[in-house]
Amino acid sequence: MSLFTAGILIIGDEILSGRTQDTNANFIARNLTSSGIKLEEIRVIQDSKKIIIDSVKLFSEKYNYVFTTGGIGPTHDDITSESLAEAFNKTYEINSEAYNILEKYYPEGEFNISRQKMAKMPSDVELIYNPMTAAPGFKLSNVFVLPGVPKIMEQMLQDVLLKLKKGKPKKITTINTDLFESKIAPSLNDIQNQFTDCSIGSYPYFNLISKTGGVNIVISSWTMNSLTEIEKEIIKMIKFNGGNYSIV
Amino acid sequence: MSLFTAGILIIGDEILSGRTQDTNANFIARNLTSSGIKLEEIRVIQDSKKIIIDSVKLFSEKYNYVFTTGGIGPTHDDITSESLAEAFNKTYEINSEAYNILEKYYPEGEFNISRQKMAKMPSDVELIYNPMTAAPGFKLSNVFVLPGVPKIMEQMLQDVLLKLKKGKPKKITTINTDLFESKIAPSLNDIQNQFTDCSIGSYPYFNLISKTGGVNIVISSWTMNSLTEIEKEIIKMIKFNGGNYSIV
Repeated sequence: MSLFTAGILIIGDEILSGRTQDTNANFIARNLTSSGIKLEEIRVIQDSKKIIIDSVKLFSEKYNYVFTTGGIGPTHDDITSESLAEAFNKTYEINSEAYNILEKYYPEGEFNISRQKMAKMPSDVELIYNPMTAAPGFKLSNVFVLPGVPKIMEQMLQDVLLKLKKGKPKKITTINTDLFESKIAPSLNDIQNQFTDCSIGSYPYFNLISKTGGVNIVISSWTMNSLTEIEKEIIKMIKFNGGNYSIV
Repeated sequence: MSLFTAGILIIGDEILSGRTQDTNANFIARNLTSSGIKLEEIRVIQDSKKIIIDSVKLFSEKYNYVFTTGGIGPTHDDITSESLAEAFNKTYEINSEAYNILEKYYPEGEFNISRQKMAKMPSDVELIYNPMTAAPGFKLSNVFVLPGVPKIMEQMLQDVLLKLKKGKPKKITTINTDLFESKIAPSLNDIQNQFTDCSIGSYPYFNLISKTGGVNIVISSWTMNSLTEIEKEIIKMIKFNGGNYSIV
């Protein structure tokens, strides 16, 4: 079985300054996981040509798929396309298909020089169509270049995922218990050691007012065909420790 | 004037699987920016000892301050403290101050072996106190190790920031206009070229139902004493193009 891996590059000073809460990485992450693609890393990087080039090159070699968001608009701070061209030794030029799409989209006389910039891309790309605001993204090598505006990015990603070679989806089960994490930690460790093909994550939460809390135990595996046996072991362990459980 | 830089490492498979939307990076980012510390990079990395060690070492050399969140609880998947010890060639051992804090916090007989794990840290750390659930974080070299649970992390960060050497806060002004981005792109570029000590970001938004939209123009600078002159230029430009504006 082949496992596909991915990395995400969020390009944007506005995320690093804290002005904007990024939601694109989470949206892509959820969709990759359910498509059987293992997201291994997310980086939020500055709007800097050198940093974009270095990061794209590194990710492109390291992961099967790379997704970038941000920096493909019409203004001077949109430098993703230009950087991608440099990263892959391509010419940065008007893509005629993108040009035609944009020319058609705008009312006569409004397809000005700034908007034309959105048709400038590395040579030899495959367009990713934008059903909402026309300006396309593109695929170059194993890198998918998407816009930063969430609603638009989300639509375009769906299209990308349809065409992507996918792996076997990750199997995931979540068991909630009202026991505290420290109570179950040793037994959970034992169960993890018994089943090395899966990963058992333990995510505690607290209600600071009622002073109650519990744990979500997430069992996941990219390779196993069933998690039932591990599920049973964990439920047995919760009962043994006097706790309640539910499958989330 | 010295400029302090920072990097954030979010340690957590649950973010990469998309199960959890991270909000810690944004909270830290906002607080750093207002403290005059420039956040240059965020990485979300896997719960893997090797990856944590490599990333911490790299960030510790690259940035003045490093913040990590996640992986300091009592279970087998909490490997941040252990990894930090290895990254800095320290012993991974019971910290007696942390041990005492936790022992006092738990009712008699409930400070079990798993909870004791939360007192295991690299040698020579400085504790970061946790006013909510007792288990402390720590500072080692220039790395601040914080928990992943947002409410707890947020409280502890406030404490860290009080003691931190800060820079001059970043100056930021946001001007909103109802003009489209492509309309103002060339003039904005000219203004950016006139004022090279600031960065002018342009963040478009669309209302897809009403088909209206606009741009938030964010002027920011770590070094300039005033942004008023740039603000005036941008407002003049908006008016010249027939748009409305407001200072956000």
